[in-house]
Amino acid sequence: MKNKGSAWLAGVLLALLWIPASHAGEGMWPLTNLPVATLKQRFGFTPTAQWIRHVQLASVRLAEGCSGSFVSPHGLVLSNHHCAVECLEGLSRPGHNLMAHFFYAATRKEELKCPAMEVEQLVHQRNVTGAVNQATRGKSGAAYAAAMRAVSNRLESACVAGDAHKWRCQVVHLYHGGEDWLYKYRRYQDVRLVFVPSQQTSFFGGYPDNFNYPRYDYDISVLRVYVHGKPAHTPEYFRMSAHGPRAGELVFTSGNPGATQRDDTIAQLKALRYPIFPLALQFLAHDQGLLEAFSAQSAHNAAVAAGTLFFVDNAIKSLDGQLAALNDARQFTRKERAEAALRAQVAANPRLRAQYGGAWKAIAAAERRGKSIFLPAFLIVRHGIFNARLFSIAFGIVLGAHERTLPQDKRIGEYRAANLPLLEQQLLSPAPVHPHYDALVLSSYLTTMRDLLGSDAPICVTLFAKDSPQQVAAHAVFGSKLADIAVRKALWAGGQKAVAASSDPMIVLARQMLPYYLKLRKEYEDQVLAPVEVNTAKIARLRFKLYGTRIPPDATFTERVSYGVVKGWLRDGKMVPPFTTVAGLYKHARSYAPLQLSPEWLAAKDRLNPATPMNFVSSNDIVGGNSGSPVIDRQGRLVGLIFDGNPPSLGGAFWYDGKNNRAVAVDSAIILGALKHVYHADALVQELTTGR
Amino acid sequence: MKNKGSAWLAGVLLALLWIPASHAGEGMWPLTNLPVATLKQRFGFTPTAQWIRHVQLASVRLAEGCSGSFVSPHGLVLSNHHCAVECLEGLSRPGHNLMAHFFYAATRKEELKCPAMEVEQLVHQRNVTGAVNQATRGKSGAAYAAAMRAVSNRLESACVAGDAHKWRCQVVHLYHGGEDWLYKYRRYQDVRLVFVPSQQTSFFGGYPDNFNYPRYDYDISVLRVYVHGKPAHTPEYFRMSAHGPRAGELVFTSGNPGATQRDDTIAQLKALRYPIFPLALQFLAHDQGLLEAFSAQSAHNAAVAAGTLFFVDNAIKSLDGQLAALNDARQFTRKERAEAALRAQVAANPRLRAQYGGAWKAIAAAERRGKSIFLPAFLIVRHGIFNARLFSIAFGIVLGAHERTLPQDKRIGEYRAANLPLLEQQLLSPAPVHPHYDALVLSSYLTTMRDLLGSDAPICVTLFAKDSPQQVAAHAVFGSKLADIAVRKALWAGGQKAVAASSDPMIVLARQMLPYYLKLRKEYEDQVLAPVEVNTAKIARLRFKLYGTRIPPDATFTERVSYGVVKGWLRDGKMVPPFTTVAGLYKHARSYAPLQLSPEWLAAKDRLNPATPMNFVSSNDIVGGNSGSPVIDRQGRLVGLIFDGNPPSLGGAFWYDGKNNRAVAVDSAIILGALKHVYHADALVQELTTGR
Repeated sequence: MKNKGSAWLAGVLLALLWIPASHAGEGMWPLTNLPVATLKQRFGFTPTAQWIRHVQLASVRLAEGCSGSFVSPHGLVLSNHHCAVECLEGLSRPGHNLMAHFFYAATRKEELKCPAMEVEQLVHQRNVTGAVNQATRGKSGAAYAAAMRAVSNRLESACVAGDAHKWRCQVVHLYHGGEDWLYKYRRYQDVRLVFVPSQQTSFFGGYPDNFNYPRYDYDISVLRVYVHGKPAHTPEYFRMSAHGPRAGELVFTSGNPGATQRDDTIAQLKALRYPIFPLALQFLAHDQGLLEAFSAQSAHNAAVAAGTLFFVDNAIKSLDGQLAALNDARQFTRKERAEAALRAQVAANPRLRAQYGGAWKAIAAAERRGKSIFLPAFLIVRHGIFNARLFSIAFGIVLGAHERTLPQDKRIGEYRAANLPLLEQQLLSPAPVHPHYDALVLSSYLTTMRDLLGSDAPICVTLFAKDSPQQVAAHAVFGSKLADIAVRKALWAGGQKAVAASSDPMIVLARQMLPYYLKLRKEYEDQVLAPVEVNTAKIARLRFKLYGTRIPPDATFTERVSYGVVKGWLRDGKMVPPFTTVAGLYKHARSYAPLQLSPEWLAAKDRLNPATPMNFVSSNDIVGGNSGSPVIDRQGRLVGLIFDGNPPSLGGAFWYDGKNNRAVAVDSAIILGALKHVYHADALVQELTTGR
Repeated sequence: MKNKGSAWLAGVLLALLWIPASHAGEGMWPLTNLPVATLKQRFGFTPTAQWIRHVQLASVRLAEGCSGSFVSPHGLVLSNHHCAVECLEGLSRPGHNLMAHFFYAATRKEELKCPAMEVEQLVHQRNVTGAVNQATRGKSGAAYAAAMRAVSNRLESACVAGDAHKWRCQVVHLYHGGEDWLYKYRRYQDVRLVFVPSQQTSFFGGYPDNFNYPRYDYDISVLRVYVHGKPAHTPEYFRMSAHGPRAGELVFTSGNPGATQRDDTIAQLKALRYPIFPLALQFLAHDQGLLEAFSAQSAHNAAVAAGTLFFVDNAIKSLDGQLAALNDARQFTRKERAEAALRAQVAANPRLRAQYGGAWKAIAAAERRGKSIFLPAFLIVRHGIFNARLFSIAFGIVLGAHERTLPQDKRIGEYRAANLPLLEQQLLSPAPVHPHYDALVLSSYLTTMRDLLGSDAPICVTLFAKDSPQQVAAHAVFGSKLADIAVRKALWAGGQKAVAASSDPMIVLARQMLPYYLKLRKEYEDQVLAPVEVNTAKIARLRFKLYGTRIPPDATFTERVSYGVVKGWLRDGKMVPPFTTVAGLYKHARSYAPLQLSPEWLAAKDRLNPATPMNFVSSNDIVGGNSGSPVIDRQGRLVGLIFDGNPPSLGGAFWYDGKNNRAVAVDSAIILGALKHVYHADALVQELTTGR
């Protein structure tokens, strides 16, 4: 079959074009698989085993979804301010607002224990692909999942060895299961606050500057981990550089990128490009306007809406950036060519074709199905996020009552026994209810549902049989007794029977929605999400089979190193310089939020060197989860602290665009400079610079 | 040059594939150029000269942008309710709301004169391409424009022959100037109201049903034109069919489609697809949310925001539909292939290449330029529509003062002498000002500008030097004296000097914005709009040169006929039936707006035959401007009244999609049926059915 043979060869050759580091800088590499050859060839740098071990042990993960690093032998941890917000809010009291004012513990006694925070240090990792494959071989569906759960539990338990307080062990699937690893973490659960600036300083520039550059943020937090009431001994830590990196310098980040979708197919990306992202952006923009007008009515309203508005603002910027990336013809075409080459290679090889040939078509079919039910699924199933609190509570109670009648393995994940305590805590939370806010948001949600699905859609016929969406919302909110926690408790405890008997109008509304929700959720999960996930994993494993560890795996919120160079990028034909300075910060400031300097920075102006670098950008490949990652140089010194990406970096979900993707970091020079001259944190500066 | 020759031939053959009526139904055809061969071949119907003349004289244009037709020999005109809104609002008085209640003049004496309405009947058209070409030959730029103005004025003046009250003459450019025609209209300026239903009936289903189907709207208005105080004699009129069309029947529309962009290049369509439409939709959705929350605060607020909210809602639906069309891969690929074929043909012919070869690249370059300044241009130049009234007034005064210092031909169009009276009327209008609305909308606009352009964009540095966008807006609105018309008058009369001396904070704000506005507007017009327009016209004339009148010209709000068939379409795999019925109307109704039936329809339920068709769809190719167009059968009888299109018809701006594009009409059976059984308009029914 010569013809096939040569086509197969052509396919391989084509595919090979896409393997090598055609985009230098690409990849979030596991420490067990750094791109050593590329580093040597391009930068003349070869990381030693010692260097790698040092980076691994000096890096940490914050359990909430951030990264950090040890910066002294006494358990001192450096991360972002925005990674410590939960701790700061938990520690704040009336008259002692840790978000509004900076905090500095000059002595260890003054350090404040964060209510719930965990720092984890990856101490060991072992390739367990063989064991996992052996346990799951020949299985599929539920049997596969059960076997996977069993082997994971076995490996993890053995690894923890009875001390779950000290160790966390996780089976990690790289290449969507192409490789399986057992990661062992040292857990630190006594985490104390040493230093934070005010949020005004850490998030200087606010929403308009967010995901943008030039930037002037001092987004740092300093924590300390304790063991048995004493600072942990952490001999592997990063020394801070007093002067930060130079332009053009090779730098590394070490951290825990959360998730990427770089194995997504063209069909998936096209569905995101249209209709998913444009429509999601319309919903978000509508909510933004709604919350903006609500907030404008009073300071009270503004406070009520602030959290959701922040979330909406941030989501809009993030999706705008991702949509722009998906509309970058150069990058998209590159991705299309890579997929075409891979598919050609598969098509030309009967064995590959039999095993993998159907994956792309299966995904495309699932995406077409997704497109046809996207609007109702989005409106009815994914309504949760922006919804009014009373409605969310009612729906949680009604859905929970239904799910709890089912056996564990038939339930929706959140309603399995193990997750019920968290859910109960949310549903029975004493957080105040704001009926006017709830009525506005619920009315807007129901009206949008009616407008987009049509008055004669079955769910609208049910919900709006007698009253308009606005009337239904007002009736449900102002007639509900669910603000009373005791009422919620009784309904939750009473289960199906109590829910069925309730005449609370909010419960009635949730009850009416339930069957539509269940039907659509099942349809979307079974017909869209599941086939997409299965086949995406298939393609990822195929790529791993063909290219091995020459390509980096998708991010999994596990320790990865990226390399890059400190440099600007070309925006609208103009080069954006890589560094900003203290002088730029004072120039950028205004007398109103979010550009108002905090008093300590205003007072320190003359003590700071205006030329000190403030923030810098580098071509490192990072995504969310890398927040708080150290930026280190060849010598393993900490030269910066990752806190954001530039707008083109938002495309990092789908691919790495070396020309434009930039990570944004706080320069180590200003970290030390401000601690000294703004905050007079002399003891901390000494510990950071001398280790004592 | 054999090679080139054969490539040229291949190009022609390729191009030819795209000429013929590959999409039956496509085209808004001038009466002078109906697709006679296609009609004969596909439907066995050949319109006679008499048929064509009859259609022309029985059809009318409403000067505000609608269509209509004569439906009796006594000047009776049928159009849409939504085409008569200005008249209805003008005639409404406290206690006599013509939007809220139906109106019927049982006798001619009761007919109400519309304050400002004009009906125009196309009586004659003459091809003047020769004269126009002769006058403009060899000219370009300003000289071309001047010569065009001169020859148009000469032709139009001669045609009007001194009686501008009776005649309107217009030089009309078909095929973007491929053909020039002189159109002569009989003007009717005494237009009286005979019958309208309430808006509740005409726009039944409201926003959620708008641009949708099934539909149940009675969107009709009946007017009468008078000459010298007596009903006009209109011997050419459409007889109404008592039973409407049958499914599958060939039908025609006759009307004035406003504008299409079917000669747009792929580069233009791609720019609309991203970023223009998605971004515009985000702005609109934001405004929708903002106005929704503002309206929810009180009935007063709802009334203040209603007009703008209606506009925003409508624009979102329209753009959503257009964006969906642009993301229809089948249609887009078809368009791409047609362009590629045309370009291949041009590339293969040295003469064509020299003359037209650069057009596509010039447009693509202009679109790239447009993309790079789209955001500031959109924010700073096109801010007008949703803006707060006081700000619009201030900006009009400031811009007007500036423009009036310039010679006529250097001014922005709206500020040329001929347009100043209209502008003055708007700026000095006594319509009330709503400061809280203004402050919210202006604050939102300025905040968006700051968020998207960045705090350090020059315009933001200027505007927000000391105060935040919210503070600037509040200060300008609540500190302004422009609510006082006398203040506006003085500033308008005082020109540059008065504007420069004013310390009114709204004038100050407008003054600060002016230089940015002028610079960007000029850049956008010179570097984007002008090259796009010139080169689009070039390509249109090339297509005309190659294909002649076998292809239809873009719409120009002049009389056109489309043909189509009464039939449904396939939506999400299900066939949508072409007709709705009276039974469906009552089933669709609810007890709340916008699905509430007006009392006269509730009362008439038993008198109406439930099987009477209410609305129907047909595959006719129509766009905005066709509102009020008669739908006629082969015999020239009126079987329906166009009032909308289905969602896929929104792609009609770019192409005709025969598979899915449907025009939506009121069936003549219910027009007559409801006049008789709901409104007891016996005299009107008699006139419509007997001509007496």
